[in-house]
Amino acid sequence: MKFNGRNLYVSGKAKIGRNVRIGDNSSIYDNVQIDDNCTICDNCVIGEPLASYYQDPDYQNPPVVIGPGSILRSHSIIYAGCSIGGGFSSGHRVTIRENTTIGERCSIGTLSDIQGNVRIGNYCKLHSNVHISQTSSIGDFVFFYPFSVMTNDPYPPSMDIKGGHIGNYSQVSVHAVILPGVSVGENCLIGANSVVSKNVPDFSLAMGDPAKVVMDIRKYVVIGKGKPYPWMNRFDRGMPWEGIGYGVWMAQGARK
Amino acid sequence: MKFNGRNLYVSGKAKIGRNVRIGDNSSIYDNVQIDDNCTICDNCVIGEPLASYYQDPDYQNPPVVIGPGSILRSHSIIYAGCSIGGGFSSGHRVTIRENTTIGERCSIGTLSDIQGNVRIGNYCKLHSNVHISQTSSIGDFVFFYPFSVMTNDPYPPSMDIKGGHIGNYSQVSVHAVILPGVSVGENCLIGANSVVSKNVPDFSLAMGDPAKVVMDIRKYVVIGKGKPYPWMNRFDRGMPWEGIGYGVWMAQGARK
Amino acid sequence: MKFNGRNLYVSGKAKIGRNVRIGDNSSIYDNVQIDDNCTICDNCVIGEPLASYYQDPDYQNPPVVIGPGSILRSHSIIYAGCSIGGGFSSGHRVTIRENTTIGERCSIGTLSDIQGNVRIGNYCKLHSNVHISQTSSIGDFVFFYPFSVMTNDPYPPSMDIKGGHIGNYSQVSVHAVILPGVSVGENCLIGANSVVSKNVPDFSLAMGDPAKVVMDIRKYVVIGKGKPYPWMNRFDRGMPWEGIGYGVWMAQGARK
Repeated sequence: MKFNGRNLYVSGKAKIGRNVRIGDNSSIYDNVQIDDNCTICDNCVIGEPLASYYQDPDYQNPPVVIGPGSILRSHSIIYAGCSIGGGFSSGHRVTIRENTTIGERCSIGTLSDIQGNVRIGNYCKLHSNVHISQTSSIGDFVFFYPFSVMTNDPYPPSMDIKGGHIGNYSQVSVHAVILPGVSVGENCLIGANSVVSKNVPDFSLAMGDPAKVVMDIRKYVVIGKGKPYPWMNRFDRGMPWEGIGYGVWMAQGARK
Repeated sequence: MKFNGRNLYVSGKAKIGRNVRIGDNSSIYDNVQIDDNCTICDNCVIGEPLASYYQDPDYQNPPVVIGPGSILRSHSIIYAGCSIGGGFSSGHRVTIRENTTIGERCSIGTLSDIQGNVRIGNYCKLHSNVHISQTSSIGDFVFFYPFSVMTNDPYPPSMDIKGGHIGNYSQVSVHAVILPGVSVGENCLIGANSVVSKNVPDFSLAMGDPAKVVMDIRKYVVIGKGKPYPWMNRFDRGMPWEGIGYGVWMAQGARK
Repeated sequence: MKFNGRNLYVSGKAKIGRNVRIGDNSSIYDNVQIDDNCTICDNCVIGEPLASYYQDPDYQNPPVVIGPGSILRSHSIIYAGCSIGGGFSSGHRVTIRENTTIGERCSIGTLSDIQGNVRIGNYCKLHSNVHISQTSSIGDFVFFYPFSVMTNDPYPPSMDIKGGHIGNYSQVSVHAVILPGVSVGENCLIGANSVVSKNVPDFSLAMGDPAKVVMDIRKYVVIGKGKPYPWMNRFDRGMPWEGIGYGVWMAQGARK
């Protein structure tokens, strides 16, 4: 059904690995490197040029790397200057702007919009419709849910943009807003529809507008389920401790 | 202007009805059935294969049915395994994932994202940018407004996903969040920016974060307009009682 | 890399100015006028026909004008009947529906959705994922941030739609909701996640759900930054007073 080579554009300056499939109607621009065993579905654009391309006759496209074994679903746009680790997965219509660095085995869902100059660690899962503003940074094993947003402008409009940071293992629920420059610690759960205006310490359940720390997440009880946080002992799908357990993985030295 | 057959892909295993128009740059994959009098605009993908397609050489695409007289606007993606009733209308860039069942005469607006394994009844209207999580269910004559979301993970990340339910005739306003497994009754109005964490009985106006039932919606008064709810007596556009009135339609046996 | 004329459709009834580049896979329909020095990137649709096109054999596409020096990024859809001033810039996957009028030097970000019959003034900046409902109006120098929304239906579903208005120089923060028919004055700042249910006077900082005026924005102090509002004296990027200052520009007669 797919991968017919129909209306496909691959630059002569792109470097395509072994066992790579590229879908119909996709464009792979200059200086893109797609590593082995990747699947680029239809209607994707990899190496989207920066704004200066439209004006500068000497423009050179900054390099892009898509790590091995990644799958990009249709209509995704990855700008020039991005580096994406292996085992990456995108939904449809994802936009990842320039100079974004993404670690190993992340996924970014349908319609999510990564604004550029963003750092994302390893094993992060951004669901659909997540918006991450420029200069934000995200640790490892972080999850974002639909319509959550990291912002960066403290008194708009300004030139003093300052993205926030989300620590390892934290969860940002649907419709949560992280205000500019705010740092959320490790192992936090930010509740649905919260507006986080101040730094949040590790192991916090924070919620509300403005968000307040309502308890230590380790004390949070779900009836019939016990204490679900930290979550690493009860959830392993797609995690490096899948099948062996978080404790064993940590004891083995936490190799990714 | 449209429908020139340019860069069009239609699988030999697709079944196309009479008087069907398919736009340029669209792809119709295996085992898709498009019923009579449908219009599929440009850049659509119907029968998008499931994840196993990329790995399984014996993959068979689950069937899709698009009911008669439907119109899909450009850049919409309908996954394999979906069944959509007649008179359906989509906006642009809609994504409907696998095994979703949609009844008769629904519409789903631009950028909305139906995550799969969702059931939607008849005559539902989802506006732009609505996100419906997996295993959610929606009755008949339900309206969702922009950036509203149904969620399904009660203590993220988990494997215990449980979508909620919205009863017949209910309205879910902009930016409202339905938390996992929550059931909203019939004839409810969920206010803008609400977070619904508990079940809501029939005929409720519920609002706030967390949402509370603030009154019986039948008592709600709009100055100069009287009591606008239930809404079926004052609104009929696109409804089966259009031109005859809800009372007459009900008296006739409520045939759809 | 781009602009190879691949899979491009330009109607014989379109009027293309000098030094216009049109990207691969784009469609320019009847009665579209693209003025000099515009760049239309790949996969765009300009002059998307109205609903009646699909039924009326005598359909004539209403005219579209894209002013000089504009750039539309990929996958944007501009409906027939729109008029867009010069120096316009769009992100990716923008949708602008019919009969929308946009002034000079505006920008509309990735995934934003302008629902039609909207008026937008000059030098407005809509960031990503902004939703503007039908019949809304927006003054000059207005900024919207991600997931903000203007609504228009006071007791949904109804036919009594009434969009709101945002006055000159105002800022609408992330996730803010403007309820139907509400008028926000000039030089206001609407806080993140606010729900604005009543008119807001000029120079207000309004926030909360429902939003309340918490202070005169001219008295708002940011530690180390002084009083950042009105913002025109400290921010000029892309503004007509860039390089000369707002005061000088005003003294010169505020020519745009």
